[in-house]
Amino acid sequence: MRNLRFIISYDGTAYCGFQIQPNGVTIQGEIEAAVFKLTGESVKVISSGRTDAGVHARAQVINFVTQSAIPLERWCLALNGRLPNDIAVLHAEEVPLSFHARRAAKRKTYCYTIRRARFPDIFHRHYELHHPRKLDVEAMREALPCLVGEHDFTSFCTVRTDKEIRVRTVFEAYLEVQEERQFGTEANEQIRIFLTGNGFLYNMVRIVVGTLLQIGEGKRSSGDMKRILEACSRKAAGPTAEAVGLMLWHVEY
Amino acid sequence: MRNLRFIISYDGTAYCGFQIQPNGVTIQGEIEAAVFKLTGESVKVISSGRTDAGVHARAQVINFVTQSAIPLERWCLALNGRLPNDIAVLHAEEVPLSFHARRAAKRKTYCYTIRRARFPDIFHRHYELHHPRKLDVEAMREALPCLVGEHDFTSFCTVRTDKEIRVRTVFEAYLEVQEERQFGTEANEQIRIFLTGNGFLYNMVRIVVGTLLQIGEGKRSSGDMKRILEACSRKAAGPTAEAVGLMLWHVEY
Repeated sequence: MRNLRFIISYDGTAYCGFQIQPNGVTIQGEIEAAVFKLTGESVKVISSGRTDAGVHARAQVINFVTQSAIPLERWCLALNGRLPNDIAVLHAEEVPLSFHARRAAKRKTYCYTIRRARFPDIFHRHYELHHPRKLDVEAMREALPCLVGEHDFTSFCTVRTDKEIRVRTVFEAYLEVQEERQFGTEANEQIRIFLTGNGFLYNMVRIVVGTLLQIGEGKRSSGDMKRILEACSRKAAGPTAEAVGLMLWHVEY
Repeated sequence: MRNLRFIISYDGTAYCGFQIQPNGVTIQGEIEAAVFKLTGESVKVISSGRTDAGVHARAQVINFVTQSAIPLERWCLALNGRLPNDIAVLHAEEVPLSFHARRAAKRKTYCYTIRRARFPDIFHRHYELHHPRKLDVEAMREALPCLVGEHDFTSFCTVRTDKEIRVRTVFEAYLEVQEERQFGTEANEQIRIFLTGNGFLYNMVRIVVGTLLQIGEGKRSSGDMKRILEACSRKAAGPTAEAVGLMLWHVEY
């Protein structure tokens, strides 16, 4: 028995999310099917965390236990040959049997990308939220630091019935702007929002981004972010931004 | 009657090329259909040049003559609302009635992108040729300058029956390498080959790239490029590289 850990990336556009479901195609389902084709085993794939429908991963981490004797260096190529071309296995290593990709994750980074331009960049259309109207990027930037630290993030969590603890630690929260090609006099900016934390609540990044967009549009001030956080109420925050711009960027152990 | 010139971009993955065809979906066909939906007119869309099936355009230039009174500033949004999301109109201007997007084009630039990495970058899978094996990028770089100038490019033209003149002028030919993210110890490079000329023969860029790849793989030396050019025979050159990596980058008037 060996415990194998992989770094994978996937384009979530065509999937109902990471986690296996009775109806609908999932990343987990595709990987388990590929392992079955390769080894004949029915493994259970564990990830650092689920991603929702339409959400992407640049470097998701997964693990599973196998009895297969296939040498480590052959796994990536063998799985890629059995996976659709919107999922790729990038790196493999053997880890202690006790390793669990979700429980052992120390820091996770998500990136949310917004295209601030009159027209969408069609080559990134599955990986960016297109925002045609003006955005005050400096106000958005100023709103982010108050999220850093240990807080109750209830305001940024989709309401559910289960009474989980909603305290999480955010280590980093910042945005980067890249000016891109222009035609005519049109502004064309790619805005990337990076959030790193010890864990994220359901829809947390997307609700932070939805609130940030309201700040960028002038509907709220940058100081509102702190007040929303302190309100501990989902109703205080902005809407949930679309899944299309969200990407699991990096997981640290 | 007004002659309108547009900059458009498109993802060629789903299309049988630019030029309208009796069977198969084309970029020209989609644009003419969008104009018909908008104005009720059956216009003929002229482009700076055709692109083949699967080839993309970052900034293709088109024009057509219309009797519509729609103000110039409304055309982009109005057409985008009637086009599929893999075609976008980015810029519009009014030009003299005599302007013809193909005849007036002075310089065209194509970019061909190769991903030199063990595994593909799935987020660019429709816009890059994945090359898993090693490439001698310096040898490829050295092979390019001999293409610059006025030459008979018969060696880099798919054989056809019509006796056209195969002399073209290449103004620039160079490549850029960008080192990207790595997992483990894997090299991961994006190689972009830029060719600018007054015109290109059928499959010319793709045959140049197919030959460059053979040079990169050590099957030919960088000095062979000049000998292939001088041979004036399609048989002298390498294979036609796949359409997936090719993008019409820029057209100058």
